[in-house]
Amino acid sequence: MQSSDPFLFQLFLIFVWAKLFGEVFERLRLPAVLGEILAGVLIGPHGAGLVVPSDAINDVAEVGAIFLLFTVGLEIQPQDLLSVGRTSLYVALAGITLPFVCGFAYMLSQHHPPQEATFVAVAMVATSVGITARILGDMNLLQTRPARIILGAAVFDDILGMILLGVVAGLVSTTGTAWVQLLVTTLEALAFALIMLFYAPRVVRRMEPGLERMSTRDAPLIIALAICLGLSYAAVKIGMAAIIGAFFAGLAFADYSPRWNLRPRVFAINEFLAPFFFFVMGARLNIGVFDRRLVVSAIIISMLAFLSKLLGCGLPVLRSGWKTAAKVGMGMVPRGEVGLIVALVGLQTKAISESAYALVIFMTSATTLAAPPLLKILFRREAVAAPALAGEEGSAM
Amino acid sequence: MQSSDPFLFQLFLIFVWAKLFGEVFERLRLPAVLGEILAGVLIGPHGAGLVVPSDAINDVAEVGAIFLLFTVGLEIQPQDLLSVGRTSLYVALAGITLPFVCGFAYMLSQHHPPQEATFVAVAMVATSVGITARILGDMNLLQTRPARIILGAAVFDDILGMILLGVVAGLVSTTGTAWVQLLVTTLEALAFALIMLFYAPRVVRRMEPGLERMSTRDAPLIIALAICLGLSYAAVKIGMAAIIGAFFAGLAFADYSPRWNLRPRVFAINEFLAPFFFFVMGARLNIGVFDRRLVVSAIIISMLAFLSKLLGCGLPVLRSGWKTAAKVGMGMVPRGEVGLIVALVGLQTKAISESAYALVIFMTSATTLAAPPLLKILFRREAVAAPALAGEEGSAM
Repeated sequence: MQSSDPFLFQLFLIFVWAKLFGEVFERLRLPAVLGEILAGVLIGPHGAGLVVPSDAINDVAEVGAIFLLFTVGLEIQPQDLLSVGRTSLYVALAGITLPFVCGFAYMLSQHHPPQEATFVAVAMVATSVGITARILGDMNLLQTRPARIILGAAVFDDILGMILLGVVAGLVSTTGTAWVQLLVTTLEALAFALIMLFYAPRVVRRMEPGLERMSTRDAPLIIALAICLGLSYAAVKIGMAAIIGAFFAGLAFADYSPRWNLRPRVFAINEFLAPFFFFVMGARLNIGVFDRRLVVSAIIISMLAFLSKLLGCGLPVLRSGWKTAAKVGMGMVPRGEVGLIVALVGLQTKAISESAYALVIFMTSATTLAAPPLLKILFRREAVAAPALAGEEGSAM
Repeated sequence: MQSSDPFLFQLFLIFVWAKLFGEVFERLRLPAVLGEILAGVLIGPHGAGLVVPSDAINDVAEVGAIFLLFTVGLEIQPQDLLSVGRTSLYVALAGITLPFVCGFAYMLSQHHPPQEATFVAVAMVATSVGITARILGDMNLLQTRPARIILGAAVFDDILGMILLGVVAGLVSTTGTAWVQLLVTTLEALAFALIMLFYAPRVVRRMEPGLERMSTRDAPLIIALAICLGLSYAAVKIGMAAIIGAFFAGLAFADYSPRWNLRPRVFAINEFLAPFFFFVMGARLNIGVFDRRLVVSAIIISMLAFLSKLLGCGLPVLRSGWKTAAKVGMGMVPRGEVGLIVALVGLQTKAISESAYALVIFMTSATTLAAPPLLKILFRREAVAAPALAGEEGSAM
């Protein structure tokens, strides 16, 4: 064991620094994730150089990303999808299309190669609803109509975002005629998603009696972990990103998560591993690339990400009044893990440059920081009348 | 992410194989741990060669060992130590001394170098009480006097075994006059153990109000993980093994484990990581070293380990009758994780040869397999009269 001090040392140091910055950010009422990334920026190789993550740490970070997306999938209750219905689907679709188009067009106009433009555009797509859910939860507004539309749309958004990432990652990892390839990988990603959405939960249901007969302690957890690792690897094998497999593995187990008590236990693994992912993410950010031109680009990309999501998600609910539209749109603005992972996949496969990577991190941080205060203002009135409104608006859906 | 397929592939393969063998062993009513080790032997580099664990996997295995010992520590309730009192302490002390002396003497008599003899002897020391506890639990006999003596002695045995490992690991990692060095490392290990046993729980107690004010979600779990990693690293730094730090970190949090719900969550991390440790353990076992001479040695060492523990732990309770003595002695016979880790530390620091490593794995497996059926026979009569006896014998203590 003595042979691997440096690994243990990095493990300790990164965990403590990431969590320390996370705690400071939480106290400032900022997202902890941004603190963990900042820790990587500051003490990583491009910052103080205190920790240069070794290959083993990068591998641990990868497993961290897998568990992160596994927990995201586990959190999604398929019944949520049914209850919110079409409105949420339209919100999600428009909220994906507009940012993608805006991002892609802007990147091309700035003479970035199409591949890089695609990656940055995909990274602009995926909403991270955790922050919104937390704010609305704190205000006791999760049962209001806008909140339910947001949460439903976020589910579709996650799934569609994953399929999009699957397509893009597939395109990078293969060579061939561009359009044929695009078709093939799109079909592949769609087929994977459909199988996982509709067939996999049934397989899990059928496994149940067998699981209860198994002699291994905690058999459901073990099987869930094995399937998570297996699908992550399968996703890589068919040319998508590992996290896509992990996400859909989570979805497949979501129904049984409460019954098998999976959530707190998978979350514990995630609590241990995710900080390494966010730290490594920050450690790879070279602040040196931020010259005047890139800062301007970063600000424009962030504004585009903000406005396109606000508009895209607001428009489908405009007939419910502009206030509801603004609430829904603003609730969908924060970006998060998925966008960051897209950028990291791009950087690792050399599909995007360090500058484009920096753009995505800037955009993610900006949208995540800008949305919460504005959300609070928009929802302020409802917060007062919340208990009465909740039932009324809920039944109006 | 694509760049690290092989890591993800090994992660998946090892996890599934280890758990598969674990499940088969459980169904055969054998310890799952031995199944996980066998998986490593069979498909590892010295077996079918299907998986040659990479450096990253070895690092993961090391973290697995750390969490394994962290959970062992978490399980120990300091009040257990008080309730069983002196009898258990004597049982533990005699049960450590006799196997150590026998093992050391035999290894020296076979012309093994003193360092190797020391490591093998230390590996023969530590009882793994899990199997015994499970058998007695199944028979509903955990409240009988022999059971309580065994469980109490196992706690002392763990702690003393850890101190012994600390001393031995310290001796290997340093150079200097042997006797002075022995004194220094013994004092170091003792001081570490005493601080962790008596001072650390108080620190944890004092941290409590602060923890509840923290903004980070799951703050107690995060702090426990950070301290586990920190003490593991500290243990390596002062020349002991990482797992010693992890074990005592677990002890320090044991009191608060139920309140902070640490157990199921740390166990989940352990469920994920420990299989890698056991698999790697098996993968390092070169069956090729088992020639006729080594098999004879392995059988003798196993018999010595069996008899010395039976006698050592039986003698201090002989005045309660030879039946009680036999029960207590047999309950302490199974060896487990700690012995295996001692052997692995020895192999990694090149303190012991592949043959000596094979001896330890053989001895651990043999004692673990031999004890359970004999235990069941010894406790058979009590099982019938258990409910009545439990109260009576319990009050006699």
